[in-house]
Amino acid sequence: MSHHGSTWQGCMDQLDQGQSAEDQQIFLLKCIADSLDDTNDGVNTFFLIYAASLVFFMQAGFAMLCAGSVRLKNLQNSMLKNLLDACGASLGYYTVGFAFAWGGSSPGESTNEGTTFVGTEQFFLMNVEQKAFWLFQFAFAATSATIVAGTLAERCQMLAYLAYSTALTAFVYPVVVHSIWNNTGFLSSFRAEPLLGVGVVDFAGCLVVHTTGGLTALIAAYVLGPRKGRFYTGVDGKRTAKDFPGHSTALKALGVFILWFSWYGFNAGSVYSITAKNHPLLAENAAVNTTLAAAGGTVSALLVKVWLVERRTGETLFSLSDALMGCLSGLVSITGGCAFMESWAAIIVGLLAGVLYLWGTDLMIRFGIDDAVDAIPIHMICGIWGSIAVGLFSNPSYLQLLHPAKQAGLVYGDGNLLACQLIGVLFVCGWVSVLMGPFFAVLHYIGWLRADSLEEIVGLDISYHGGLSVDGGTTDNESSHSEDMARYYQRREEQRRSHRNKMRRRILMMDMSLSGHKPRNDDDHLNHLEDPPLSGSGHSKRNVEDHLNHLEDDPPLGASLPSIAVARDHTK
Amino acid sequence: MSHHGSTWQGCMDQLDQGQSAEDQQIFLLKCIADSLDDTNDGVNTFFLIYAASLVFFMQAGFAMLCAGSVRLKNLQNSMLKNLLDACGASLGYYTVGFAFAWGGSSPGESTNEGTTFVGTEQFFLMNVEQKAFWLFQFAFAATSATIVAGTLAERCQMLAYLAYSTALTAFVYPVVVHSIWNNTGFLSSFRAEPLLGVGVVDFAGCLVVHTTGGLTALIAAYVLGPRKGRFYTGVDGKRTAKDFPGHSTALKALGVFILWFSWYGFNAGSVYSITAKNHPLLAENAAVNTTLAAAGGTVSALLVKVWLVERRTGETLFSLSDALMGCLSGLVSITGGCAFMESWAAIIVGLLAGVLYLWGTDLMIRFGIDDAVDAIPIHMICGIWGSIAVGLFSNPSYLQLLHPAKQAGLVYGDGNLLACQLIGVLFVCGWVSVLMGPFFAVLHYIGWLRADSLEEIVGLDISYHGGLSVDGGTTDNESSHSEDMARYYQRREEQRRSHRNKMRRRILMMDMSLSGHKPRNDDDHLNHLEDPPLSGSGHSKRNVEDHLNHLEDDPPLGASLPSIAVARDHTK
Amino acid sequence: MSHHGSTWQGCMDQLDQGQSAEDQQIFLLKCIADSLDDTNDGVNTFFLIYAASLVFFMQAGFAMLCAGSVRLKNLQNSMLKNLLDACGASLGYYTVGFAFAWGGSSPGESTNEGTTFVGTEQFFLMNVEQKAFWLFQFAFAATSATIVAGTLAERCQMLAYLAYSTALTAFVYPVVVHSIWNNTGFLSSFRAEPLLGVGVVDFAGCLVVHTTGGLTALIAAYVLGPRKGRFYTGVDGKRTAKDFPGHSTALKALGVFILWFSWYGFNAGSVYSITAKNHPLLAENAAVNTTLAAAGGTVSALLVKVWLVERRTGETLFSLSDALMGCLSGLVSITGGCAFMESWAAIIVGLLAGVLYLWGTDLMIRFGIDDAVDAIPIHMICGIWGSIAVGLFSNPSYLQLLHPAKQAGLVYGDGNLLACQLIGVLFVCGWVSVLMGPFFAVLHYIGWLRADSLEEIVGLDISYHGGLSVDGGTTDNESSHSEDMARYYQRREEQRRSHRNKMRRRILMMDMSLSGHKPRNDDDHLNHLEDPPLSGSGHSKRNVEDHLNHLEDDPPLGASLPSIAVARDHTK
Repeated sequence: MSHHGSTWQGCMDQLDQGQSAEDQQIFLLKCIADSLDDTNDGVNTFFLIYAASLVFFMQAGFAMLCAGSVRLKNLQNSMLKNLLDACGASLGYYTVGFAFAWGGSSPGESTNEGTTFVGTEQFFLMNVEQKAFWLFQFAFAATSATIVAGTLAERCQMLAYLAYSTALTAFVYPVVVHSIWNNTGFLSSFRAEPLLGVGVVDFAGCLVVHTTGGLTALIAAYVLGPRKGRFYTGVDGKRTAKDFPGHSTALKALGVFILWFSWYGFNAGSVYSITAKNHPLLAENAAVNTTLAAAGGTVSALLVKVWLVERRTGETLFSLSDALMGCLSGLVSITGGCAFMESWAAIIVGLLAGVLYLWGTDLMIRFGIDDAVDAIPIHMICGIWGSIAVGLFSNPSYLQLLHPAKQAGLVYGDGNLLACQLIGVLFVCGWVSVLMGPFFAVLHYIGWLRADSLEEIVGLDISYHGGLSVDGGTTDNESSHSEDMARYYQRREEQRRSHRNKMRRRILMMDMSLSGHKPRNDDDHLNHLEDPPLSGSGHSKRNVEDHLNHLEDDPPLGASLPSIAVARDHTK
Repeated sequence: MSHHGSTWQGCMDQLDQGQSAEDQQIFLLKCIADSLDDTNDGVNTFFLIYAASLVFFMQAGFAMLCAGSVRLKNLQNSMLKNLLDACGASLGYYTVGFAFAWGGSSPGESTNEGTTFVGTEQFFLMNVEQKAFWLFQFAFAATSATIVAGTLAERCQMLAYLAYSTALTAFVYPVVVHSIWNNTGFLSSFRAEPLLGVGVVDFAGCLVVHTTGGLTALIAAYVLGPRKGRFYTGVDGKRTAKDFPGHSTALKALGVFILWFSWYGFNAGSVYSITAKNHPLLAENAAVNTTLAAAGGTVSALLVKVWLVERRTGETLFSLSDALMGCLSGLVSITGGCAFMESWAAIIVGLLAGVLYLWGTDLMIRFGIDDAVDAIPIHMICGIWGSIAVGLFSNPSYLQLLHPAKQAGLVYGDGNLLACQLIGVLFVCGWVSVLMGPFFAVLHYIGWLRADSLEEIVGLDISYHGGLSVDGGTTDNESSHSEDMARYYQRREEQRRSHRNKMRRRILMMDMSLSGHKPRNDDDHLNHLEDPPLSGSGHSKRNVEDHLNHLEDDPPLGASLPSIAVARDHTK
Repeated sequence: MSHHGSTWQGCMDQLDQGQSAEDQQIFLLKCIADSLDDTNDGVNTFFLIYAASLVFFMQAGFAMLCAGSVRLKNLQNSMLKNLLDACGASLGYYTVGFAFAWGGSSPGESTNEGTTFVGTEQFFLMNVEQKAFWLFQFAFAATSATIVAGTLAERCQMLAYLAYSTALTAFVYPVVVHSIWNNTGFLSSFRAEPLLGVGVVDFAGCLVVHTTGGLTALIAAYVLGPRKGRFYTGVDGKRTAKDFPGHSTALKALGVFILWFSWYGFNAGSVYSITAKNHPLLAENAAVNTTLAAAGGTVSALLVKVWLVERRTGETLFSLSDALMGCLSGLVSITGGCAFMESWAAIIVGLLAGVLYLWGTDLMIRFGIDDAVDAIPIHMICGIWGSIAVGLFSNPSYLQLLHPAKQAGLVYGDGNLLACQLIGVLFVCGWVSVLMGPFFAVLHYIGWLRADSLEEIVGLDISYHGGLSVDGGTTDNESSHSEDMARYYQRREEQRRSHRNKMRRRILMMDMSLSGHKPRNDDDHLNHLEDPPLSGSGHSKRNVEDHLNHLEDDPPLGASLPSIAVARDHTK
């Protein structure tokens, strides 16, 4: 029951019968090997499309996280920025981003070529052999931009957003990618002579994506300033943060679940090719460690917060928000070393990430930096922690399956990788600061960055997007005037009455047919059983109310109980 | 670390050692080739299940789009119709739909057989060799039905819905599939002598799925008429549309993100088999172009709307709704040619789709056609545009990887394909109009189509589904009476007080142990430190309020601040 | 355009040219076979990661189902439990769960080893060869815990939740897995001499996951007791249930769509390896039957409910909630036999599941058991039904593709499998009851199980999680005071006026340039056209109102109509 042509048949059809037996066998061997290449081609393309589609789905996760975290008055603004992240990144990566990051190189292969700062080929997707790889990389670039958008929510102008997201995805981020992942980048471990003999290791973008995005968010949030009313001086004289309750708890949780789900594509997908020897082993290790670190981050953020609050107030507070953010912290921090660590190390990395997140949010408050979705502690602080953790816990037996240079984490007795990781962190911090710092400062200076004070207070949706969102039932019933409702329920009662009368007739008929004698005057008898008529202008309000009260003696249908109550209100 | 039996070992185990060396080698060759066939079988089935599950997930996307677009009073009705789309399509496709569309043919292969109108085999899934292909096709049929459901939301009877969705998925849509995709269809490019030597090209259903669904929606919306209060005559004497603000902006955005994500399955999955030579190339090209066209549609709908509004009112309006719908327009319009176009062409197709969407919504208002989710401009107008674009931009070097006939888009110098595409559009428009026009007219005539006027006003949820949805917090706290809340907060304060006293005792003990001398009378000293008791009937309200005011001197826990405020309200 | 090294080239590179021609051919044959093994390894790992990630995504589905079903006051509590399910299961399965369930065995292979009660190897993921399999199994364990969490929502303490979810995923559930799925389990059909010659068949966990979870939910709900106010004595003297309207209808529907989507991973993924001969056939059959049973369950629950309600009240009620739950019932019930049944049987299984769900909810009410999300009827009752259905409808020609023992369902003339299935059901019921019954009784006795009465009334979010969720717009506009709004709209009007004046100037200029003569005094002429100034302290309120009324003569921009209305309110 094969769903495609048989490989053997296909090869036999092409066989030249005139050849020698040996040549024929060689031909068949080569033909089967070529078919296998087609299969591998299919599997790897499929794998990258799967992974890229999951990474793209992170946009939905971040959008729901934002939707749950911002106030209703800024909801449309947040959703639009999330949508534009994906669109901007795709156009930015199409035109120049991919070329700067990857132009002219073969991902994941060693090279002897010299170091380059950026790629200079394959602009506009020209001559890109494996477009699925472009797709996967575009989705990563979109993620880095989305991180920043969340932090700046509720107070940033649309124009500033468009400016920085273009700058980030088209140039700042691609240079980081090129330096660390591209085999001609100066920090790459695929170079012939990598830094300190090992180079920087970042399996799925802990440093490249998350630290870059998170640090940009920090710089932007610092320049932009906090939302109005976010900070005040508490009774202890310290800066205290007012919580702005987000628009929906359920959507915030949904966002985190979507992100965790998508992270399997982010991390496992980063082996690029799944049919290569040992790559499956790295991919599944990445997926398992992703799970364990997420669990570690959740549990530690939740329990440490319980402990902190209990010590201070004597109450037990299980903070959903901290558990959710702890989960993301665990996911971010394992991104760098997920394929190379043992499971126990992944749990440690996650546990620490949860604590670092709590420390980070506290730090942000202390320094008066307002982060609407806690992206700075999660992506920057845990991104840096995860990058360092690669240098601590990476198991050399896993590392050598992918990286040509001999590397090992500190617990396996080698400090060079840790040193490289630290250099990598310094490079990213320096590069992003040098570029994005002045960038945001200039935006601020020319007045493009921060939304007008009044616009912020009434909400960006009214200011830029044509009005406040409706959410839930508040204004939905505008056309359901109470008179209509009353009319509707009155008609319904008439239908119910008619049904009851029909049923009573039927039961009576059955009664009579069972008892064997025919009633003298059917109509009289039956009419007597019926409810008095309900509708008609002759009814006083009093009568209707009496009647409706009487109706409740019938066994009510669960869902219609409240309806009757409403109806009665209208007839009073 | 192989996770399954070794191919070599398996083949050696079956080897007949008595055979000649040459026969043994042939046996091994054939054995390996057969193993490869099993692998290919697995990969292709997996690929179709992946793609089909993603296309199925579109149901969630359309449901959220509807949930976000309709008013709360019709929410249950919309959700039920979305759910029934999937169920109805699966039963309809199980019984007759698949047989009519595909019965007895081999998808994607050329044939010399004559033309047939519908398939006549494989009813009830009998003798279907590749059930994963059935699954993929069922998901497409469900999509075509869902498109219509959105348009008719808020005013269509359940019975009418069940009638048309059955008619559409069981017969009208399968005939379109058969004519264009099946290799015995009269428009198929896989026939021995296709139309104009080329046949119609529709890679993933731009014409087959979206135009069919969108046109059905147009016919239905025309016959059904607009929702009450949707149109009014503006001050300029023109028909003006009143916006009905949907139930949730966040869910609308979520719907679009889910749809974009699922579209990767819709478009890339349409190569059917991923291990065949060159199919990976088509699949990844489809995925990349899907991305770029979505971005193009979003950006053009957003910016053109900004420009239009600015010209008219001088204000800058970034319309989230138009950006979201523009995104879907881009996705629909690239569906036909995604695998065959260059990236630049995909961007052009998307950019134009965004503008066509804006023009289409304007057109709908001008003709008084009410479309609750803008499905007509998105699926019909952009569906037609996408089908024509195939004839304009298809690159022959891509086309020949899948289609046997020599074809090329107009920009590559060949007009025959464009002519065929136009004929295809005319056929679909004619076929759907001839069948669905009278169908909806009859439904309308016998009174099955439109919900009763009063039922529409109070909302279909009350009319058909047992009552209004609760959304958000409006009625959730019915059982949380203020007395309970007051009691609760009072008890909590007692607990807090006890904790503070415990802490003070502890600090005092530490103080004393550090200063080295023991207090004379521990209990007296400690009791003095404690707060006065709070509970008990002897307390006047005044005292409690004083006490609570006093409590605020303690450093409050962020989250409990409002609680205290509430508590005080209740003690007043 | 191959995206990886050529297999042929790779093998030729390793070839020892000094060997004999025959040895060289054997080497090449073996080399190609080994490459194929790498490919298979990649495909199967990829398949399990795909399936596991989908099964994990069920957590999002269950979370949204809960979010839609509970009241806002318990939303955070529910979301946190859903998140902790995934985290707890991952840590529980990492430490001991996987070892107990699978330690030291080869899944899906026959064995002659003796029977064991639990596995005793591979604790802490040590020596686990295929970590992707661990991931898939962890996701299953998480599902079984989540089922219970939904039922107990709105009244269960956090501590009790942590206790039972740990007990369930770390021991109770793993023993069930070991007994039925592990090839050394006493009910396994992979043993050398299985029970009654056939053993228990449970393809994807109908009995193992759903019945175990559902029965635990039943025991817990019985011990825990109903939510306050859930039951009351109706007018007919019977126990009647008060519906607690859930927090969001749309999210409930979203949950079901996500679950259906994820079920493709749950069911199709349970073949474990997709490249093995005939496994694709089983996987696609599983996916198709999953679809048909879901449709069957939806349709029967919906229509039977329509019939029941119509008979009783004469009204037509299409219950969305019952359709959604019927869908899940169909999905649960097909889980056991999805790969082994014909399509018609899957539809029958689904249809009956929908009816059994309705009967089950009624039963729960009759016995006073309160199930916040109907998990007991869905997972326990339909789980048992599905397990029995395996013994009725399993087609032997499918069964023999996976199971070594000769088995067949009753309709194929063999009763042994049915007997085994019944024994399996009894074992699961007995095992779970014996362990979880006393467990929950003890929790209840020591006061850990049920939340304090007052805490339940005010809602668990206030009690444990720091306060009520904000949902929708209720308190979002706290900072948007009406004065700010008024100021904002006033400024906006000024901008509008200025734009109109600019446009009038422009039109005048065009008029003049067209008519060819120059106006004498431009400024005078233009000033005359302008609106009178709006802002400034000299304006009386009356004037502003007049002016604003006047403004409406301009063609309004759709979205800004309500804004103007608001503005006018503030100026009154």
